[in-house]
Amino acid sequence: MIGGGKNAFIGAIHRAAAIMDGQIELVCGAFSHDPKMAKESGAMLFLPENRTYLSYDEMIEKEAGLPAHERMDFVAIVTPNFEHFTPAMMALNAGFHVVLEKPMTVTLDEAKQLQKKVYETGLLFCLTHTYVGYPLVKQARQMIREHALGQIRKVWVEYPQGWLSNLLEKDGNKQAEWRTDPQKSGKSGSMGDIGTHAAHLAEYITGLKITDICAHLSIVVTGRKLDDDGSVLLQFDNGATGVLTASQVAAGEENALKIRIYGEKGGLEWEQQEPNTLIVKWQDRPAELLRAGANYTYLSNVALANCRTPGGHPEGYLEAFANIYKNFAVALSTKLSGGDPEPETSDYPGVEDGVRGMAFIESVIASAGSERKWTSMTV
Amino acid sequence: MIGGGKNAFIGAIHRAAAIMDGQIELVCGAFSHDPKMAKESGAMLFLPENRTYLSYDEMIEKEAGLPAHERMDFVAIVTPNFEHFTPAMMALNAGFHVVLEKPMTVTLDEAKQLQKKVYETGLLFCLTHTYVGYPLVKQARQMIREHALGQIRKVWVEYPQGWLSNLLEKDGNKQAEWRTDPQKSGKSGSMGDIGTHAAHLAEYITGLKITDICAHLSIVVTGRKLDDDGSVLLQFDNGATGVLTASQVAAGEENALKIRIYGEKGGLEWEQQEPNTLIVKWQDRPAELLRAGANYTYLSNVALANCRTPGGHPEGYLEAFANIYKNFAVALSTKLSGGDPEPETSDYPGVEDGVRGMAFIESVIASAGSERKWTSMTV
Amino acid sequence: MIGGGKNAFIGAIHRAAAIMDGQIELVCGAFSHDPKMAKESGAMLFLPENRTYLSYDEMIEKEAGLPAHERMDFVAIVTPNFEHFTPAMMALNAGFHVVLEKPMTVTLDEAKQLQKKVYETGLLFCLTHTYVGYPLVKQARQMIREHALGQIRKVWVEYPQGWLSNLLEKDGNKQAEWRTDPQKSGKSGSMGDIGTHAAHLAEYITGLKITDICAHLSIVVTGRKLDDDGSVLLQFDNGATGVLTASQVAAGEENALKIRIYGEKGGLEWEQQEPNTLIVKWQDRPAELLRAGANYTYLSNVALANCRTPGGHPEGYLEAFANIYKNFAVALSTKLSGGDPEPETSDYPGVEDGVRGMAFIESVIASAGSERKWTSMTV
Amino acid sequence: MIGGGKNAFIGAIHRAAAIMDGQIELVCGAFSHDPKMAKESGAMLFLPENRTYLSYDEMIEKEAGLPAHERMDFVAIVTPNFEHFTPAMMALNAGFHVVLEKPMTVTLDEAKQLQKKVYETGLLFCLTHTYVGYPLVKQARQMIREHALGQIRKVWVEYPQGWLSNLLEKDGNKQAEWRTDPQKSGKSGSMGDIGTHAAHLAEYITGLKITDICAHLSIVVTGRKLDDDGSVLLQFDNGATGVLTASQVAAGEENALKIRIYGEKGGLEWEQQEPNTLIVKWQDRPAELLRAGANYTYLSNVALANCRTPGGHPEGYLEAFANIYKNFAVALSTKLSGGDPEPETSDYPGVEDGVRGMAFIESVIASAGSERKWTSMTV
Repeated sequence: MIGGGKNAFIGAIHRAAAIMDGQIELVCGAFSHDPKMAKESGAMLFLPENRTYLSYDEMIEKEAGLPAHERMDFVAIVTPNFEHFTPAMMALNAGFHVVLEKPMTVTLDEAKQLQKKVYETGLLFCLTHTYVGYPLVKQARQMIREHALGQIRKVWVEYPQGWLSNLLEKDGNKQAEWRTDPQKSGKSGSMGDIGTHAAHLAEYITGLKITDICAHLSIVVTGRKLDDDGSVLLQFDNGATGVLTASQVAAGEENALKIRIYGEKGGLEWEQQEPNTLIVKWQDRPAELLRAGANYTYLSNVALANCRTPGGHPEGYLEAFANIYKNFAVALSTKLSGGDPEPETSDYPGVEDGVRGMAFIESVIASAGSERKWTSMTV
Repeated sequence: MIGGGKNAFIGAIHRAAAIMDGQIELVCGAFSHDPKMAKESGAMLFLPENRTYLSYDEMIEKEAGLPAHERMDFVAIVTPNFEHFTPAMMALNAGFHVVLEKPMTVTLDEAKQLQKKVYETGLLFCLTHTYVGYPLVKQARQMIREHALGQIRKVWVEYPQGWLSNLLEKDGNKQAEWRTDPQKSGKSGSMGDIGTHAAHLAEYITGLKITDICAHLSIVVTGRKLDDDGSVLLQFDNGATGVLTASQVAAGEENALKIRIYGEKGGLEWEQQEPNTLIVKWQDRPAELLRAGANYTYLSNVALANCRTPGGHPEGYLEAFANIYKNFAVALSTKLSGGDPEPETSDYPGVEDGVRGMAFIESVIASAGSERKWTSMTV
Repeated sequence: MIGGGKNAFIGAIHRAAAIMDGQIELVCGAFSHDPKMAKESGAMLFLPENRTYLSYDEMIEKEAGLPAHERMDFVAIVTPNFEHFTPAMMALNAGFHVVLEKPMTVTLDEAKQLQKKVYETGLLFCLTHTYVGYPLVKQARQMIREHALGQIRKVWVEYPQGWLSNLLEKDGNKQAEWRTDPQKSGKSGSMGDIGTHAAHLAEYITGLKITDICAHLSIVVTGRKLDDDGSVLLQFDNGATGVLTASQVAAGEENALKIRIYGEKGGLEWEQQEPNTLIVKWQDRPAELLRAGANYTYLSNVALANCRTPGGHPEGYLEAFANIYKNFAVALSTKLSGGDPEPETSDYPGVEDGVRGMAFIESVIASAGSERKWTSMTV
Repeated sequence: MIGGGKNAFIGAIHRAAAIMDGQIELVCGAFSHDPKMAKESGAMLFLPENRTYLSYDEMIEKEAGLPAHERMDFVAIVTPNFEHFTPAMMALNAGFHVVLEKPMTVTLDEAKQLQKKVYETGLLFCLTHTYVGYPLVKQARQMIREHALGQIRKVWVEYPQGWLSNLLEKDGNKQAEWRTDPQKSGKSGSMGDIGTHAAHLAEYITGLKITDICAHLSIVVTGRKLDDDGSVLLQFDNGATGVLTASQVAAGEENALKIRIYGEKGGLEWEQQEPNTLIVKWQDRPAELLRAGANYTYLSNVALANCRTPGGHPEGYLEAFANIYKNFAVALSTKLSGGDPEPETSDYPGVEDGVRGMAFIESVIASAGSERKWTSMTV
């Protein structure tokens, strides 16, 4: 693991998710630029001192030098955005598979370089768009693939948070500091941090691609350097339209990612904060509540493959995150043993998703700065 | 009453709402252009034959000729949009107060003519934007007036319906026929029929005015003549931004008007389909559920004045509609007895609301046809 | 109308409900024992002075003396429980049909006397068990009649209120005063006031009869004279079992009547505070949300006959109450014109329901005072 | 670990929960009586062959013989009920701390023997009553301890499941087989399997003790050997009353454990299927929604100590289970290092809870067989 020292939020999440299914073990880490912090983190995690590295350069180099059965199988990079590209490229160059936090990089160009490298090396690459790890998100995708709703017409996806309603970055909040800092976060705040999740979710479930966008971004809190709120009108490649909103200043909201998709015959509604229910609304019959783990003959295999508990035993964010890791681990071990991963059991976001995410961010920025209504989203 | 013959949906709603509080009595009507239907409707409603008129011209003329204590006090016009202007103007000219269905007219220009006439005559004019009749909508407005949320930053208002997901207007559905017909409905379908409700609700609760819009309209169902779906980015006069969506092709949705408003300190959420709960989300403490009729020390007087039942005895659409009528009746009887209506007990949408509604429609049409991102909403 | 003077809660509810559909008109009233109040109430309701009576004796006698086309068709009695029997019996003796508030009387014996009189006279008798007026309650009953759930096994019905959590009857609250006074309310507080609604709802929907009960009653608030909380285990005539709870001291609750019924194949859940949704849970497929006014091919005719608005336009307590009146009015006018009322359009609680309600109260009291587990409910 | 072979439901749950926080590592196991299954399970879990034992006798004996720093620290017993007592007693006798599935034993007498042994040895003992691991359950307990609701008056706890609506035990379902078999499960089906959870939850949150019960048990599905449904009236040691229901034949329900508790000032409502929200209903102000991970100044330290993610990132059943293990691990490592565990960070159900659980089952059986209304619950 690169990054994720002992006080980092997302590092602990990654570790809990990675180990949940007993398929992945933490064997080494470069947890911090600060040597003291790096060592304390390693100790806290019961790592031997010789595999607690003080920099990612050192880690990648030394691990590459270990015998195959001893060295790490892949590297998980959980640093702030501006430190994604370099260690990821370095790891790929050294022959390591990579798990990377989103957004993939700081620029679309960097993302494309990584993509090229992944294609050249044939290594596995996983981007932790957590929310597509939920079983009912996979169920929704499967239903749309099977034309349960008919042609898709509308996509409304929203991601309201309220935590940045005040100028938290001036109050010593570390998360707020780097996420609102263009040097560390990139060109967009709200759209980079959460808008990309929303865009990815919309494309993932519908199987459609965003083609054109009309974006309005705002810095709502005075003194902030990056947008903390944005609204985007969307056009998709099948003619469907949509709206994407992402806000970090929707005061009182927690992490209310929600998507609604409508086709000719009905609609789907899913909200991340109650992820074990998928509401299916039909035009000609009563709405249905699909539940994770339950209703076995109705749930698709791909959804069930991502459930750990029977209906009524709620699974949550860590389990969704663990599904990303589990599916990556299945793909990796299949690959390591010479096989071909099956789509149902090895479904995780990859390098193309990362490139599209960066293209989304750059197109939103371009559109927000334009007086024209529509801007093409080009990759 | 003008329009609202025995098979008309909205006529029956108006009558039930008008009589609910025992303040208003139906005394005459011109229910249909079809004499047979007009007469049958009058008979069904227990009206005497001599006050069941065959045209609104006749009704207005004859009623005006009756002694003051006998003739109708006001006229309610519940015809399709294209027949709003003429009878309303005629009624005002004849000295009758007017209750009119929304949208006010077919063009902004007509709306302004009515406004001018109302100002000149000093007569009362009520536009039945039903949804602001709900007590918790009034509560929301009152809370924002009292700065409970601080400065308003975001407004998300949505109005999804699914009933026009098919080409219903070709299947003999009367409602669908006139509402999708530009001759009868006006320049916009979804925005005129339901978008205006959403825009009005947003302005009513926040006390803000929409200044600029960026609209995208679609005809989703092939063969339809008017937009059945639209999305609008909004800017308000205090710098807040928002998104308004209105769709008649959100398959599986009923009448899911919903608004969320965020300020510096928290947010409000209200949904018409469960209108007796107002969710108040706070940035620094747990969300609260305000309930119609309950929590007496927390509900404002204006909210309580629009409740009929104690908490837990749900009120609905007819009661909201009845509040519009009741408040109009209170204003009217106060005026008739020479007094000044009090805002708390005589709060109903008026002629300015109607004019702004028409301006909204015309601006949306203009924006939808423009390649520029933003169009001013001018009245 | 007998009772229901200008400050009475339930009188205003009855009037709003009765007039909602334009089938019933208030023509006379004996609103109060207090002559001043009686007259003011009549004036407030626009009644002529000669039909505002000072006692129900006077009203029944004088109305009976009017010509048939002039006198009232039926009498609605909305007084506290202890004044149900005498005016009801008097009205029946004078040949008037009767609408009576629940519980029917103060003792089971009185209830049986009324029943006998109703049978003898052939007059119509309606008991306002409001909650069975909701369209989805009728839908639930219809589904069970058609064996959608298979054999019924479990019935859980609960009626939590919190309004009597304090000794409100000592604070000048009129409602609390009479409802907690054995002289005016009868032998039971919580069970008489709300437990009877719950028992009636359970029998109405399931079509089953309670045969045995095991009751525990409490006076939770010190100083109160009647039970304010009770729990009852139930056995039904088909072998199903159940639990009924009724509490007036569930602090923070409003009027949360809720019922869940399970059969071999699935279950039904309905809650009065969100009455427009009926949740149907299936053992072998996803749960469904049936909605009032919507899903037309799924809703039974009897449910639709009790809806006024299309789906998504919520109806509430007053509409449910109005359905009782409307169905009574349909039955009455059918009878007056010599016809036979149809079950679908004239479904309202009658004299047998009232007798069973009184039997329930007396059995609960008996069981609560017994050390034996089970007490038969005998009528 | 004893039990929990590769196809066992609860074994996998225990392991995922135990390892989640990186504090506990699986070092050995006796997973099955079937040697093949035992070995395959060990291999699947990456255990060395010499620590994959073929019986728990062997495991306890051999582990006890290992050097202190090598041998297991504690044993987790996840076998069916009838195999709880013997291995637990054996482990305690060998000096191992114990984590045991509930219900603790098959008889109250066995439970008391274990309790005696735990007291004598001073070893730690944890009973996995999972549901008290949820952070908001701890929040509820803390609020009641701090008298937020005033004196507690009512407790309603319900545990509806539907999975045994058919005679599943005859269809080859392993879970159904042993859970409905008196030889393996004990004297009660529904009350032993889920009723004990409900009773424990009620006592845990309120801090009250059940003193008297009035139970009715049923075998609803013909051919079953143990009760699959039961209802229990409760009396608590402070005079409060309550109702507990547990059903395995509530067709269509998943695992809908729910508790409502009312005091003088308000009530609490928590449902396991949406565990991240605690509804607090107040008598004199709006209801509040407390959310796991959020509302930081309102959540107690003990609740926050049991959250892993910030508000809006839902946690579920595995995290609740992991809290039991984490708190046990904290207590154990504190103890191993000579310290005293703090209540806030080492709160897990213990041997007294197990004994009371068995007393509850035996009292319910006694009451169900009695014609008297009330039976004392004696431990």
